[in-house]
Amino acid sequence: MSGERQRVVIVGAGLAGSALAAMLGRRGVPVDVYERRADPAEIAARGGARSINLGISERGMRVLRDLGLAGTLAGRMVPMRGRAVHQSGGRLTFHPYGTHDHEILHSILRHDLNEALMDLARSHDSVRFVFHSRLSSLDLEAPKAAFVDERTGEPTVVAADVVIGADGVNSAVRREMQRGTQANFRKEFLEWGYREFAIPAPAHGEHARLEAFHVWPAANAMVVAQPNRDRSMTGTVFLPLTGEDSFATLTQPDRIVAFFDQYFPDLRSLVPDLVAQFAAKPVGHLVSVRTSPWSHADRTVLIGDACHAVYPFYGQGMNAALEDCVALDECLTEHPADLGTAFRAYEQRRRPHTDVLADLSIQQFAELRDGLRSPLFRARRQADLLLHRLFPAAWQPLYTLVSHTTTPYADALRQARRQDRLLTVAASAVAVTVAGALARGALRELGGRR
Amino acid sequence: MSGERQRVVIVGAGLAGSALAAMLGRRGVPVDVYERRADPAEIAARGGARSINLGISERGMRVLRDLGLAGTLAGRMVPMRGRAVHQSGGRLTFHPYGTHDHEILHSILRHDLNEALMDLARSHDSVRFVFHSRLSSLDLEAPKAAFVDERTGEPTVVAADVVIGADGVNSAVRREMQRGTQANFRKEFLEWGYREFAIPAPAHGEHARLEAFHVWPAANAMVVAQPNRDRSMTGTVFLPLTGEDSFATLTQPDRIVAFFDQYFPDLRSLVPDLVAQFAAKPVGHLVSVRTSPWSHADRTVLIGDACHAVYPFYGQGMNAALEDCVALDECLTEHPADLGTAFRAYEQRRRPHTDVLADLSIQQFAELRDGLRSPLFRARRQADLLLHRLFPAAWQPLYTLVSHTTTPYADALRQARRQDRLLTVAASAVAVTVAGALARGALRELGGRR
Repeated sequence: MSGERQRVVIVGAGLAGSALAAMLGRRGVPVDVYERRADPAEIAARGGARSINLGISERGMRVLRDLGLAGTLAGRMVPMRGRAVHQSGGRLTFHPYGTHDHEILHSILRHDLNEALMDLARSHDSVRFVFHSRLSSLDLEAPKAAFVDERTGEPTVVAADVVIGADGVNSAVRREMQRGTQANFRKEFLEWGYREFAIPAPAHGEHARLEAFHVWPAANAMVVAQPNRDRSMTGTVFLPLTGEDSFATLTQPDRIVAFFDQYFPDLRSLVPDLVAQFAAKPVGHLVSVRTSPWSHADRTVLIGDACHAVYPFYGQGMNAALEDCVALDECLTEHPADLGTAFRAYEQRRRPHTDVLADLSIQQFAELRDGLRSPLFRARRQADLLLHRLFPAAWQPLYTLVSHTTTPYADALRQARRQDRLLTVAASAVAVTVAGALARGALRELGGRR
Repeated sequence: MSGERQRVVIVGAGLAGSALAAMLGRRGVPVDVYERRADPAEIAARGGARSINLGISERGMRVLRDLGLAGTLAGRMVPMRGRAVHQSGGRLTFHPYGTHDHEILHSILRHDLNEALMDLARSHDSVRFVFHSRLSSLDLEAPKAAFVDERTGEPTVVAADVVIGADGVNSAVRREMQRGTQANFRKEFLEWGYREFAIPAPAHGEHARLEAFHVWPAANAMVVAQPNRDRSMTGTVFLPLTGEDSFATLTQPDRIVAFFDQYFPDLRSLVPDLVAQFAAKPVGHLVSVRTSPWSHADRTVLIGDACHAVYPFYGQGMNAALEDCVALDECLTEHPADLGTAFRAYEQRRRPHTDVLADLSIQQFAELRDGLRSPLFRARRQADLLLHRLFPAAWQPLYTLVSHTTTPYADALRQARRQDRLLTVAASAVAVTVAGALARGALRELGGRR
């Protein structure tokens, strides 16, 4: 993007939109960010319907360091050094994420991260935020976009050479861009939903193993929680949408009480008003979106959830969105005079990896649900961690590659598959050696008898 | 559906809509079929933008026999007994579809099949067709549906207890049914498109191997053709949408001539006006749609392309749509008092199979494009056919199971996978035996030397 001339409009002032605005602003590109909601600084109630704390992994940390925000945000994050698994008997076991100090995640409130990115973007003179503005239509041929004021209903048409869709899973930019075109589109809902609840800070001291990602596994339900700076935690109940013990059936207080008493008895003592919170909150749906192409000519391009929303079980959605911003910024720098080429290069660089992330996020759900209880899975994971401890550079479990490195997702998957094959070959070699030894023994015995 | 009370509206008078109307009419159910286009009997121009001849396989034949239409239609069909492959040197090779006389396909004009199904439906007093009517909205809570007259623009609201969407890949019923719901939806476009052309009947005699499905394979293009009753054939050119030698680049007559001369020289002599036809026709796009759920409560349900449009390379789209009609009719008969249950039972019975068909149709594209030229693929296919000839009941190649039996698609895939494993095991056993023999020989030799 060549300095002064192009008028860039970003739709959506969430994490991806604000981060990209900060990157473009740093290069002096004039950017207007249009956001449907109010300025978050004005909003007293934090969070809203969306997940209210997030886990930043190494991918996100690298972007934040590059933006110079790591220091600013350090005081707002809580390290999560591993998984704290709350067994049904009440026992708490701790499983470190990795074998090294840097192999950790960072819990942060979505609001805090968004505010920091927005403040950074606003610190550049060329960046401007406009709130309460919903994209109503996009003219793909003319350099303009139409918005509606969410308070007054008043329409405005703004000049926009380039429109960047950072407007999330239900992206209006994507809808306008793909209207009447041959776009591939895939939207899937998980048969499970979620509900958030607050776990208050204890009166004295802190929760056991506060600096961890907490998991309560159960047969057909799952609770997770992340720590906050004020020693409280934010919990999420994942449950099937329908069937026995589901969001559809757990509607009466007595059934809710019975459910938690049976599967998560310790939660009831940690959260005195658990039943009231559970009954009051709306059910969140889990959506996965994949699409292509991500751009139209030199006019429009998508980033973050707008082009690849994933299930949250790998905790990578936000991290991948921040990586998108870096990749798009790089491609724009590499092809300053040809935005269409820049947009296509960006998609080529990113989509193979976000497609893999989508698959991994689905698999991770199955593993979290069934695997934490499966001896086979645990044995495989322990072999992985042991090998990682012995050969930290050469052997990295898939989870480590995804969560604690910046290896692109598809490359991570390839490396993990190579390791899987090695492990199988090694196991076969052991089996053959043992069989050979047994056979030699048997032959010796036969020889002895003769 | 319990006789008189329920007012059933079918949206779409294509193959699926007409076939289902005939089945419901046979049971005396009152059915109104609303169709966006004119009565096909009025339309002089046959076919239109859609594929104008189809291949009926055993699945479709069974449905037609059950409807009593096999005899009526016999005079309108041309048997296709195998693949006639036009090699680039001009040589024609013939590969029978199967080893038995009934393992053939039947080429028919879409118009003829549709007309026969429509006439049959109309022969029942309880069935009525309304043309020129486009569904504009569907009230999922009230028993009514709104249509617009395509000629006058006039709206009408009709009574409809049940609305059945038989309105194809861009189904308006599906759109209305899924609005604002958590529906899974997946729409994919192939990077190839197609264009149809007519191959005239020769002045004398008939085309070589007329009773066959004709294929002209090429490196990055494919032509197929099906015979018609008047000794003409209907051809289809499949090409990439973009890139070298694509629909995007083949726009000027001289380039089109050069393209056919290079890859399909014999087509130019078979079709004198090939270049004019090629330049005049619109490019068709190849769309795959999967979705779920297929129904809403006891109110709306989808059949055919509306719920599972597949790429055409297995030639099963229409056959699967006719099977849908049978399955839905059966489920409605089994649960006459509970339509919601009937609809869900129908989806449970069909979707696992149409999901497999979608996958197979994608794979078949890759096989047709690359496989006809791959020695490995040809060897595998010949082993399959040989085993089928030796053990006709026990060993049926996947293609045979899909095209020449009524084995549900997912069951067909399972059986083929079992056979694949057997073939691998058998090949390994042969390898081990050979290795063993060699080793024994080597040992004898060693013994001889000692």
